[in-house]
Amino acid sequence: MTTLEIANKLVELCKQGKHEEAKTLYADDAVSVEAFAPPGMDRVAKGLAGIRAKGEWWTSNHEIHSAIVAGPWPLDDKFIVGFKFEVTNKPSGQRMTMEEMALYTVEGGKIVREEYFYNTGA
Amino acid sequence: MTTLEIANKLVELCKQGKHEEAKTLYADDAVSVEAFAPPGMDRVAKGLAGIRAKGEWWTSNHEIHSAIVAGPWPLDDKFIVGFKFEVTNKPSGQRMTMEEMALYTVEGGKIVREEYFYNTGA
Repeated sequence: MTTLEIANKLVELCKQGKHEEAKTLYADDAVSVEAFAPPGMDRVAKGLAGIRAKGEWWTSNHEIHSAIVAGPWPLDDKFIVGFKFEVTNKPSGQRMTMEEMALYTVEGGKIVREEYFYNTGA
Repeated sequence: MTTLEIANKLVELCKQGKHEEAKTLYADDAVSVEAFAPPGMDRVAKGLAGIRAKGEWWTSNHEIHSAIVAGPWPLDDKFIVGFKFEVTNKPSGQRMTMEEMALYTVEGGKIVREEYFYNTGA
């Protein structure tokens, strides 16, 4: 698959909420980087197991009211996807809008790196 | 200035259409990369002079009907800004919507690299 094909497939699967199926687009040793560390977690998750654990933490700590997925915007072996979530943080009960841009890097037909850009307030 | 301060300033100036003033945020040897080469031009413009020349080409070849600037979304020494333009390409007379994400890299308090992510159809 080309980078654009991977980008389009990822966006399609994210729009459908098929996050586990989306992981088939990742390399086993893919790295995920957050702009800010989630509570008690590292900013960097290494490997698919670490990325899955982070995803499960996020899902179990947030009630998702709506999700918008935008893009992809490609450049060579990278692409950007936009995410906007309306969620309630379960521990605090606080409802909030989270908006972030994810930058993906592709190597050998697989996503090897994802980087989530957002503000502290996001 | 921190990366976030530079990011906020760039967005503020772009929203005001002050593109020349925005250049004061750039290093003299900054590099600008396009997802696709403009007609007769290279994909990569090197140095502020090259970036200015590309900007002047774009401005003289497009009538801008509206511009939306979104973001910034920061991560460490990088940040992303979104642009959406409604323009008419002067040579062809074709009206179109251009949507792109720009990824900026900061070093030593200046923007040293900008990369424009978009699709061929953008």
